[in-house]
Amino acid sequence: MSKPNIALIGMGLIGSSLGHALKKNNLVAHVSGYARSPETRARALDIGFVDSVHDTAIEACADADIVFFNTPLSAIKGLAEEIIPTLKDNVILTDVGSVKKGVIDELTPLLGGRVHLVPGHPIAGTEESGPDSGFAELFDGRWCILTPSGETSLIAVEQIAKLWRDMGSEVEFMEAEHHDLVLAITSHLPHLIAYNIVGTASQLESDTRSDVIKYSASGFRDFTRIASSDPIMWRDIFLQNKDAVLEMLGRFSEDLTALQRAIRRGDGEHLERIFTTTRAIRKSVVEAGQDTDAPNFGRDK
Amino acid sequence: MSKPNIALIGMGLIGSSLGHALKKNNLVAHVSGYARSPETRARALDIGFVDSVHDTAIEACADADIVFFNTPLSAIKGLAEEIIPTLKDNVILTDVGSVKKGVIDELTPLLGGRVHLVPGHPIAGTEESGPDSGFAELFDGRWCILTPSGETSLIAVEQIAKLWRDMGSEVEFMEAEHHDLVLAITSHLPHLIAYNIVGTASQLESDTRSDVIKYSASGFRDFTRIASSDPIMWRDIFLQNKDAVLEMLGRFSEDLTALQRAIRRGDGEHLERIFTTTRAIRKSVVEAGQDTDAPNFGRDK
Repeated sequence: MSKPNIALIGMGLIGSSLGHALKKNNLVAHVSGYARSPETRARALDIGFVDSVHDTAIEACADADIVFFNTPLSAIKGLAEEIIPTLKDNVILTDVGSVKKGVIDELTPLLGGRVHLVPGHPIAGTEESGPDSGFAELFDGRWCILTPSGETSLIAVEQIAKLWRDMGSEVEFMEAEHHDLVLAITSHLPHLIAYNIVGTASQLESDTRSDVIKYSASGFRDFTRIASSDPIMWRDIFLQNKDAVLEMLGRFSEDLTALQRAIRRGDGEHLERIFTTTRAIRKSVVEAGQDTDAPNFGRDK
Repeated sequence: MSKPNIALIGMGLIGSSLGHALKKNNLVAHVSGYARSPETRARALDIGFVDSVHDTAIEACADADIVFFNTPLSAIKGLAEEIIPTLKDNVILTDVGSVKKGVIDELTPLLGGRVHLVPGHPIAGTEESGPDSGFAELFDGRWCILTPSGETSLIAVEQIAKLWRDMGSEVEFMEAEHHDLVLAITSHLPHLIAYNIVGTASQLESDTRSDVIKYSASGFRDFTRIASSDPIMWRDIFLQNKDAVLEMLGRFSEDLTALQRAIRRGDGEHLERIFTTTRAIRKSVVEAGQDTDAPNFGRDK
C-alpha cells in the first residue's frame, strides 16, 4: 500500500506530536495542517512537523486519505460538517479525543456511507499545549484505544491501527461507552479533583496561600501539575462525558463523606481499613507495568 | 560544642534517614535506636545507620542528649511518659510528625521544666516505609518547619535548627496551629482525596477495575502512588489534625458540588473559569522553585 496523505486538523500537543511521529517513522506521503490560529499555522510550518499549512480545513483535507481531528471536542462537529462534503471517497476520519461516544453520535449521521469513522484515543499527554509542545515519542509504548462501531470497514480500522502501532503504540479495541466509563475514573475524575483542590487553595487568605505554595512539595504540588492542563480541552471533556463523570463523582463523594464522618467521630479503624485496602490497587498498577515502585515527593524527579 | 548523643525512637523511613544523614554529615557522637519490632532493631544495626539498638526506649535514651520521636503520632505520648522520668537534665525532645499542635498539647505537661521540647516537621518523604527505605539525602534541599513555643530555651531551639541545616534542610519557624492549617491543605487533604479515589476504584466491578489499572497512566496512577503511603501514620494524622482537615474538606466539598452542578447543567463557562484560575497557582509553585515545568504523564519519569 502506498503511503497516505494525512491532514492534521488542530496542531496543539497531540497534533504536533502526530506530525513529528508520522514523519519520523516515515509513515506518510504528505502531512497537511490546519489550525484556527494563523500563528499556530505559521509556527507548525516553521517547526516542520507538517509539509503544508492551509487557511481552511477544507483546503488542508483536499488531497487527504486520512483526517485526524486533534481539536477540543466541541470543535469537531462543525469542522466535520464543513469538510465531509468535500472529501474524496473512502477517506478515513479519526480523532484523539478523551470521550468517544459523543464523537460517534455527532459524526456518524454525517458520514453518508462515503467516508469512514475510526474513533481513537491515545493514552498519552503532557500538561503542556501548543505546536511547540509536541514530540515524536509521545505515543511510544503507550496505549491507543480505538472504538469503531461494528459496521465500520475493517480495512479502514486496520489502517488506523497500523498507523498507531507504527508510531510505537499498543492498540486496544473497546466499546465507546465502556471507554468513557473507564476514562471517567482513570482520567476525568482525577483531573476534576485536582482542578477543584487547587481552586479551593486559590481562595485561601493570602498569607496561608503563600505558605501553601511554599510547602507544596508535600502532596499539593502533584495536583497543581495536573490542574495546569488545557482548560478548554477539559471543559469539553466534562460536558461530553457528563453521565459517566457524574456517576463516578457520585460514588467518590459518598465515599468521601464516609471518610469525613470517620474523621469527625475519631473512627481510626475505618480510616485504617480504607487506607490499607488501597494498597492492593497500587500493587496491581505496579505489576501491570504502569508505574515503577520508587518515585516519591522527597527526591527530585 | 561536643557532638551530641542522639536517640532515634522509631526507625522507619524518617528514623532511618535521620540515622544515615546524621552519620554521613558527622553530626553525632553516638546514635542509639529503638523500634517496637525486634526485626526492625536487628535490621537497623545490620544496615548500620545506628551504633546501638535497645530493647526498650528507656535504654535507648539512657545517654541521649537529643531524642527524636519518629513513630506514628499515636505512639509518642506513651513513649514520652515512659522515658521522660529517666532522662538526663536538659535533654531535648523533638519529633518529625505531620501535625504539631497535638504533640505540643500531649508532651508539654510531661516536661516538668527539666527537659526541652522542640517540635519539628521535615517536609520530605517517600511512599515507602521501614528501616530499608531511608537514605541520607532525604532532607537535603527540603524545608524543615519547627514550631517551638515562646517559652522554649533558645539554645535548645537553635541546636535542633542547626542539626537540620547541617543535614541540608532549610529551617522555618511557624506557629503550630498555622502549620497544621497549611499542612491540612498541602498534604493531608491531597492524601485523603487520593486514598478516597483509589478506594472508590477498588469497589468497581472487576472488569472495569482491571481496565482502570491497565489505563491508569492517564492520571489515576499518580493517586495510587500517594495512596500507597503508610496507613497507620496517616490514620493518626487525620485523627490529630481533625479540625483543620474538616475545615479544608468542607471547603473542598462545597467547591466540588459547584463543579458537579456545572457539569450537570452543561455550564461550560463555570468550568472554564475554574480550570483557568488554577493556572495562577501552578505558575506560583513553579516560580517558587517547588517543581519544574516539564514533568508529565506521557514521558516516563
